[in-house]
Amino acid sequence: MEISDDDRAEIEKSRREASPTRRPTVPALEELLFEPMPALDHGFVRVVDYMGDDSSIVQAARVSYGRGTRKVSEDSALIRYLLRHRHTTPFEMAEIKLHVKLPIFVARQWIRHRTASVNEYSARYSILDKEFYVPAKEHLAAQSSSNRQGRGETLDDERAAEVLEILRTDAETVYRHYLQMLGAGDDAGQDVGPGLARELARMNLSLNFYTQWYWKVDLHNFMNFLRLRADAHAQYEIRVYAERMLDVMKKWVPLSHAAFEEYDLKSAHLSATAIQVVRRMLAGERIDQPASGLPKREWDDLMRVLGR
Amino acid sequence: MEISDDDRAEIEKSRREASPTRRPTVPALEELLFEPMPALDHGFVRVVDYMGDDSSIVQAARVSYGRGTRKVSEDSALIRYLLRHRHTTPFEMAEIKLHVKLPIFVARQWIRHRTASVNEYSARYSILDKEFYVPAKEHLAAQSSSNRQGRGETLDDERAAEVLEILRTDAETVYRHYLQMLGAGDDAGQDVGPGLARELARMNLSLNFYTQWYWKVDLHNFMNFLRLRADAHAQYEIRVYAERMLDVMKKWVPLSHAAFEEYDLKSAHLSATAIQVVRRMLAGERIDQPASGLPKREWDDLMRVLGR
Amino acid sequence: MEISDDDRAEIEKSRREASPTRRPTVPALEELLFEPMPALDHGFVRVVDYMGDDSSIVQAARVSYGRGTRKVSEDSALIRYLLRHRHTTPFEMAEIKLHVKLPIFVARQWIRHRTASVNEYSARYSILDKEFYVPAKEHLAAQSSSNRQGRGETLDDERAAEVLEILRTDAETVYRHYLQMLGAGDDAGQDVGPGLARELARMNLSLNFYTQWYWKVDLHNFMNFLRLRADAHAQYEIRVYAERMLDVMKKWVPLSHAAFEEYDLKSAHLSATAIQVVRRMLAGERIDQPASGLPKREWDDLMRVLGR
Amino acid sequence: MEISDDDRAEIEKSRREASPTRRPTVPALEELLFEPMPALDHGFVRVVDYMGDDSSIVQAARVSYGRGTRKVSEDSALIRYLLRHRHTTPFEMAEIKLHVKLPIFVARQWIRHRTASVNEYSARYSILDKEFYVPAKEHLAAQSSSNRQGRGETLDDERAAEVLEILRTDAETVYRHYLQMLGAGDDAGQDVGPGLARELARMNLSLNFYTQWYWKVDLHNFMNFLRLRADAHAQYEIRVYAERMLDVMKKWVPLSHAAFEEYDLKSAHLSATAIQVVRRMLAGERIDQPASGLPKREWDDLMRVLGR
Repeated sequence: MEISDDDRAEIEKSRREASPTRRPTVPALEELLFEPMPALDHGFVRVVDYMGDDSSIVQAARVSYGRGTRKVSEDSALIRYLLRHRHTTPFEMAEIKLHVKLPIFVARQWIRHRTASVNEYSARYSILDKEFYVPAKEHLAAQSSSNRQGRGETLDDERAAEVLEILRTDAETVYRHYLQMLGAGDDAGQDVGPGLARELARMNLSLNFYTQWYWKVDLHNFMNFLRLRADAHAQYEIRVYAERMLDVMKKWVPLSHAAFEEYDLKSAHLSATAIQVVRRMLAGERIDQPASGLPKREWDDLMRVLGR
Repeated sequence: MEISDDDRAEIEKSRREASPTRRPTVPALEELLFEPMPALDHGFVRVVDYMGDDSSIVQAARVSYGRGTRKVSEDSALIRYLLRHRHTTPFEMAEIKLHVKLPIFVARQWIRHRTASVNEYSARYSILDKEFYVPAKEHLAAQSSSNRQGRGETLDDERAAEVLEILRTDAETVYRHYLQMLGAGDDAGQDVGPGLARELARMNLSLNFYTQWYWKVDLHNFMNFLRLRADAHAQYEIRVYAERMLDVMKKWVPLSHAAFEEYDLKSAHLSATAIQVVRRMLAGERIDQPASGLPKREWDDLMRVLGR
Repeated sequence: MEISDDDRAEIEKSRREASPTRRPTVPALEELLFEPMPALDHGFVRVVDYMGDDSSIVQAARVSYGRGTRKVSEDSALIRYLLRHRHTTPFEMAEIKLHVKLPIFVARQWIRHRTASVNEYSARYSILDKEFYVPAKEHLAAQSSSNRQGRGETLDDERAAEVLEILRTDAETVYRHYLQMLGAGDDAGQDVGPGLARELARMNLSLNFYTQWYWKVDLHNFMNFLRLRADAHAQYEIRVYAERMLDVMKKWVPLSHAAFEEYDLKSAHLSATAIQVVRRMLAGERIDQPASGLPKREWDDLMRVLGR
Repeated sequence: MEISDDDRAEIEKSRREASPTRRPTVPALEELLFEPMPALDHGFVRVVDYMGDDSSIVQAARVSYGRGTRKVSEDSALIRYLLRHRHTTPFEMAEIKLHVKLPIFVARQWIRHRTASVNEYSARYSILDKEFYVPAKEHLAAQSSSNRQGRGETLDDERAAEVLEILRTDAETVYRHYLQMLGAGDDAGQDVGPGLARELARMNLSLNFYTQWYWKVDLHNFMNFLRLRADAHAQYEIRVYAERMLDVMKKWVPLSHAAFEEYDLKSAHLSATAIQVVRRMLAGERIDQPASGLPKREWDDLMRVLGR
């Protein structure tokens, strides 16, 4: 991740400014504010604003006049109760705004979360920088043989080298041609003639080029995002971002974060049939998959939950 | 509007607390924070939190690293441009949270705005206070004869007195019975037996009783609310709230507020046919309604826009 | 539930009309179409339109050119897979539209589901009928002593009679005064003078009066509604509607309905701690609540899931 | 646009099937159902399902028991009234589902409309076809000199040829390498070794490759899409789709389409200042831009509206 000197100066300037506010304030998050947290080879997540804290959830749930907080233990119990019973509306009362730099193919997954606000850097309006994602060698995995939408073994060195060579060379090529079509000069800075409209030239760029956006979301929908994207089934490249964001959540709303781990991230869902299987096992019955009434995959998942 | 001593103390406590923050801060809105602004006879609006300011809109539109502000004139021009061209997403980047006390029939209109977050005081869980709306005499209007969904002349004194008497007496009665069913004791505090479930007893209350909620919305949807509810066609009782909120907007995001007045609140929409009428008028043609091709009501509206 | 002769004639007329369509069609739901299904004393749910069937979910998940169906067993397996893994977007591809008549206090809970389209009968524009909800005696429950937001024992006969008397008398009174304020004549039909605006007069009605609306929602959000409102913790009066809607779902999309029961309605959620408790129990450890690390209420819930 | 024989057979099969339904049915749209309408060089829009017609809007606005239709003229007047006064909720009561094939860079604009349901063909799961967009020569425009986000003059022949050569060659290259990384064999069908995960390989494809999705939206949000994307300021490549969809709308809901043209597509918005300018002009004053108080661009736009 490189930040230009100008951008770095802007960030520092924002970090130096402080004003008094009557609003709920989270010192641990203030500390983090505006600072880019690296993700992938050129990407980042940085928190640019936030509204509310754990007490704001409590306050809204109680529709109270003051800050709503009583003892930490009471607030924590209420937050746990709300999350456990999927009383999700109070979690909409806290809000966070991120500036994210991410490859376009990651952005395409991310944008599927509709209950957020987005402003993306416009390639109709501006020229994209020459920044594209190339995976680290250890993340170059073969197609999974068991899961049609996942990764299997890491590629061997020779195959990996070939892939990296392709990714790099093609990205260099399409970017050089992008500039050439724009008439923006090539790498060497030569002008190459009247320019194709930016909104057209961009179509030559590949999906690993970086874009960036402002993304604002409430805590409820932030958790929905994390549930799906910090999950082991999510594509590695978006999971990296989700993990940064989990760190942010822990600093921002620690009580909610703990409850989220307990009742969501590390929880399990048992189907009606799986409940019966567990009951029979607890009654001492020895059951195997065919006897369980569960399809193979659901059986495997259940055994994993039960630590067997 | 009465605020209990306890609630007043909570408010004062919140107002005394101040923390340093790196976030965009609006002194004029800080001044207002937590303070209830009266609306109708017992209602209020109070701002309990906010995120962002005019510069946040500019910053998101530019996807910039720093605060995004340049000269005020440039920021203002960008905001005007965005609003004029209905580039609404940057306005989603500012957020406000209100605590509102309002009659249930107003709440039922308000809640139709779906793109907001709401936590309402629960009458399944708690007992509602004895507070109901009774219009001031000058707002007791007869059904409009021309508009099936509006008000006409103010009622004469005798009729008004009769209506006020009904509203007061019935509200007193249903509330007394509400308490009686709850077994919560009547006004005189006598216990009247084992209580009906709160979730059932509440059904006896009438729609002019007050409820309260936390309501959080982004600036884009805040403006959508104001466009509809600060409008002359809105019911007076919700317009009172919308007007308070317009005042809040002016303090919070003055550049956006000015642009909103120019391109929205005080603007006009001309239909395809109305455009032709104006062109013909400018060409010197004398036109009356039949010749205009506009239905009577559209003609009248156009004449009003044109100041004729 | 009474339907006027005019309304009944309209319904019959709609039911007689049939057109050929190339769209997915569900005979079992066609059979039900337009017919009001009673709910509470004067309410109903009736299906007025729908889009798609089980195959539409499959088709969208596969982004296929044809109807998408293969063998029923394959479709069923895919639908189960999607629901189990919370791949919810294909379920948004089926849509249903209901006409519902319901007490206002139920409507106030219902409207909290924001991802639906609603058109409500307007009491600004029209005069509401004299129809209000009075619970059957067996549903008159006392406030729960254990659950601040629920019902406990049924009231004894004397207390119940008192409550019913209050509900009936007050509703009669406020409605009579509503008409009187409107100048619409009282029950006896006498005109009582110039009328108060309808938008004002309605505030005198109580929350058990019936309103009605058109409500349209996709299958994903329909299931979200049912998960919360067909649940044992939902207030009885809205649960009645949810149960009618579950019947509708079973006829409309039987494969999805079966999967919804298996993975949702009859499933259970285990917290991180609860998973550890089950593992220890399966390993033969004898655990009681204090040893479990679970709060009392979570322990009770877990024991219920495990059938202990 | 090429449709494979298999896909064509599926389409024909769907078109042959017909069932009787009691639902509102639109013969003109049935005629179109499932048939791909070409857009750009390889894309298409095809209607795969719909719910409701003009009468459904009327029916919801009236919350009526029957179909809601009276005379066409009354229905039309009501629809015009609703659209004119931005009473948008009844338009949510009609729904349409499309299958769309479109370049990824167009999909990226399209997806910004959040109030729709989408299922996209997954390149994590499947291998994309070798289909990419190359503009027709007459659409190869230079960057606009006046509008930073638009097109200016068409490129001259030599420059155009160069651009087309780049777009074609690069797309061929990245696709060949995509297959090579997948180990899926190159064009000549030779197997080239163990395959990179599909979710990774896809990042080498450029933004002009085609994707496809199911997209479902209600009529209100369909119109919002058309307002923005059928507009002259929209990028040509998405406008092509919007224009096909306008044709669909005209067949589906002709009364709404006519009202949409009158009050939206062909209407104009006058700012507060612009209203004053028109009033002064009508009063006979001769005004030029400096005297108008309007910025240059707003003045030009107003003169265009006024046909001057």
